[in-house]
Amino acid sequence: MEIYKEIHLDKNSPQHLYMQLFYKIRQFIMDGQLKANEKLPPIRQLANTLGVNTSTIVNAYGLLEKEGFVYKKIGSGTFVSPRKDDRLEDVVLEKYPLDEDIRLMDRGQIQIKENMISFASATPTSDLFPVDDFKILLNEVLDRDKGDAFGYQESQGYYPLRESLVDYLKEINIETNSENVQIISGAQQGIDVIAKAFVDYKDTIIVESPTYTGAIGTFKSRGAKIVSVPILEDGIDIHLLEENIKKHHPKFVYLMPNFQNPTGYSYSKEKKLKIIELADKYNTFIVEDDYLSDLSFYNNDNATLKSLDENDRIIYIKSFSKIFMPGLRLGFLVIPKKIHHRILAAKHTSDISTSGLNQRVFDLYLRKGIWKKHIRYMEKIYRERFDVMKNCIEKYFKDIDISYILPKGGLNFWFSLPEGYDSNKLYVEGAKNNILILPGSIFFISQNESRFFRLSIAAVYPKDIEIGIKGLSQVIKRFIKKDTKERKGPDSYTPLL
Amino acid sequence: MEIYKEIHLDKNSPQHLYMQLFYKIRQFIMDGQLKANEKLPPIRQLANTLGVNTSTIVNAYGLLEKEGFVYKKIGSGTFVSPRKDDRLEDVVLEKYPLDEDIRLMDRGQIQIKENMISFASATPTSDLFPVDDFKILLNEVLDRDKGDAFGYQESQGYYPLRESLVDYLKEINIETNSENVQIISGAQQGIDVIAKAFVDYKDTIIVESPTYTGAIGTFKSRGAKIVSVPILEDGIDIHLLEENIKKHHPKFVYLMPNFQNPTGYSYSKEKKLKIIELADKYNTFIVEDDYLSDLSFYNNDNATLKSLDENDRIIYIKSFSKIFMPGLRLGFLVIPKKIHHRILAAKHTSDISTSGLNQRVFDLYLRKGIWKKHIRYMEKIYRERFDVMKNCIEKYFKDIDISYILPKGGLNFWFSLPEGYDSNKLYVEGAKNNILILPGSIFFISQNESRFFRLSIAAVYPKDIEIGIKGLSQVIKRFIKKDTKERKGPDSYTPLL
Repeated sequence: MEIYKEIHLDKNSPQHLYMQLFYKIRQFIMDGQLKANEKLPPIRQLANTLGVNTSTIVNAYGLLEKEGFVYKKIGSGTFVSPRKDDRLEDVVLEKYPLDEDIRLMDRGQIQIKENMISFASATPTSDLFPVDDFKILLNEVLDRDKGDAFGYQESQGYYPLRESLVDYLKEINIETNSENVQIISGAQQGIDVIAKAFVDYKDTIIVESPTYTGAIGTFKSRGAKIVSVPILEDGIDIHLLEENIKKHHPKFVYLMPNFQNPTGYSYSKEKKLKIIELADKYNTFIVEDDYLSDLSFYNNDNATLKSLDENDRIIYIKSFSKIFMPGLRLGFLVIPKKIHHRILAAKHTSDISTSGLNQRVFDLYLRKGIWKKHIRYMEKIYRERFDVMKNCIEKYFKDIDISYILPKGGLNFWFSLPEGYDSNKLYVEGAKNNILILPGSIFFISQNESRFFRLSIAAVYPKDIEIGIKGLSQVIKRFIKKDTKERKGPDSYTPLL
Repeated sequence: MEIYKEIHLDKNSPQHLYMQLFYKIRQFIMDGQLKANEKLPPIRQLANTLGVNTSTIVNAYGLLEKEGFVYKKIGSGTFVSPRKDDRLEDVVLEKYPLDEDIRLMDRGQIQIKENMISFASATPTSDLFPVDDFKILLNEVLDRDKGDAFGYQESQGYYPLRESLVDYLKEINIETNSENVQIISGAQQGIDVIAKAFVDYKDTIIVESPTYTGAIGTFKSRGAKIVSVPILEDGIDIHLLEENIKKHHPKFVYLMPNFQNPTGYSYSKEKKLKIIELADKYNTFIVEDDYLSDLSFYNNDNATLKSLDENDRIIYIKSFSKIFMPGLRLGFLVIPKKIHHRILAAKHTSDISTSGLNQRVFDLYLRKGIWKKHIRYMEKIYRERFDVMKNCIEKYFKDIDISYILPKGGLNFWFSLPEGYDSNKLYVEGAKNNILILPGSIFFISQNESRFFRLSIAAVYPKDIEIGIKGLSQVIKRFIKKDTKERKGPDSYTPLL
């Protein structure tokens, strides 16, 4: 019991006690302080040691089991699961996926069996990358700049690239100058740099619920208090947002106003304008993560907040991972003037600067207009998939007891099983039938919300979309029928929403 | 005065009140909340507002003036200095350099005038980069891997590269396996990732004094309490280290055991072994930043701590910025087994993964043995410079009232002016004579320590070393004579050491 005595649960924390306990024990397992097949303490005993109710222990053990960290033997207790070290070879098909597996699937990094159709990956397959064009420009840069391409780059970013981006931004109605542009090593770093610049221990951040899991991880790592506000079909619940801003004085609000991840929902113009107004009224910032506004198929209103930002309140993050090449690790911020130095200092402590070679090649890519050609190509590819997906959903999902709202663009479709059903279980059923879905629990702040799932068309060819959605509709029908009597185990909790 | 009322100084903080005030006002200036030529409040008035002694205000204003943020007009007060936005074009020659300027000089990023000899840059000039070899391998990777080179890479790093690094490590007597290797986007990110994995608000970290400025920035950004222990000729003061470990229970101790930056000092074998013992005895970790052990010219004892680490207590950071190409943003960690998952999660929130293309090219570079050829070439270049430097120092500095200990390898030489002299002033005198030195204050936790300076040979050709050191010796002679009566202004404080 020695190790358990180190655990201190904080009753004043906004995080539930069972979640705190879950994280502590999970850390012990990950760190190897608890070994495979080691027995966890009996529930009553641990409750006494920690001075909490037995239900706290029951819930924590339940969640650990759900996440695959422990297993139960009837009549003898709870034990640490043996874990494989190399996660990538671990094709998780027969059991609930771990959070980390879900993230790997999201990025197209889990090896899937041949003939398997993956709606889990939101990352384009590598055959869509413009490698030949890139290779020509890479050689052009090396011949032109030689060693200079490999020295330290300015922390703010390669100046000519920042200039090219200002021109690119003009075309999407964002007027700025190169001083406001900060190059980053991908959107995830953008979020990290902004968090470093603004968030100290116990500061509050407001996010959408559900939201991008990588952002949650970063904010948690800064010790932030994260408040989530539900997103509706036309954007975040604006009244709840205002209430929470008033109450919590957040350092910023983190939003994806166009084709939100994971829901695919887009904000109405009214909500976009209202949000900018709120930021000004309550003296806070909005972080706009624009990972997909380029792919607007049926929405004439995909304006970015930044393009509407008259008060210099929007910190704009642009990622190209979904429409260009994620492995480049390249993106940029457009930032309010008065936070330049903070952002620059945060970028500096993160990695000094982004790879100068990649910045130089991308600069040429923009300057020579090859970028525009590529975007048109990706739009064409994705629009075809989007239309096929929409039609298949309307055709095959119409008689099934799941809810959804069709998005107007982007790559993601978001579904909800009836109350009490668990999408992790549906995942297992899908995988058995060679169809991968992405369980939605990782997109919520506390992992209680298990009936949602996401389907993405980034990595599925049109003919496979039809096969996959048809097959999935049958899986879901059987699942809802069969699972009716299996609802709610010890690992299910009242949803926050 | 409105803005000043926002300032809260914390009397319980380990940071001096005047330093806290300095940072607050500097932030106002950087954020644009105080405008160019705006007057700061009179000293007595601000002291009343904040409830502190007038000396606190005097010291803070003095430091702001020294750092170039404000200027004084006799009889009328203190005013905000006009600042140029684009730091890179700002060749700072006639005034005290700002901390940020010093960092840019360290990385070879400040444009210097032609004919100027820079001992400030510790970054090799770009003519030393193996661009031709790199270009061939880059094309080989693109032809071989095509789009796969641009997908998301595993967060832990490209597997074949981790394998190649295990072989490379064997040659420097570090036995490990690919599971313990974590690829990072340069050493600065390595420090950041380790801090994210271990350091929460108010945790303690122990560092050498002086130490690498980028590490200080990262630890501060995590809200850590930083305790510094002086480094001596044969390594950190081991008794003080043990006392401080006992007292503060640090999350880790951050060290550079070979050719430390900025001093160039190397740890004795005894101290290396003792440090490993202390880590085990007090249940903490040692972060070993190995940025230069490859360049050991007169030391047979440049073993890394990691090679001596029998208790799995060392977190090893390897950077190639000084001996390969800093702009690649590539390095790696060798980590204890039990912290794998923590480090991986921290890397993930930082930038998901390091550029896959650069990883693949570097892998081939190692596999084909081109790496070894390059290292031998760099050793030859640097050894020649090192020998010339050593001889020049012995020849020209022998009659000057400065102290130094010659290093046994590496690129850095560390000097101390007599008590009370300010190396920032010497910097200005050197610059007037076309010789750049690096003032040492940024390497200390609190910026009180102003009599040290660093000379580096990374970016100076042998013939210029002789010209530069000869010239510098004359500048120093005149400086010490002339400056005798100028010692200690309001901006000088009792050194901590």
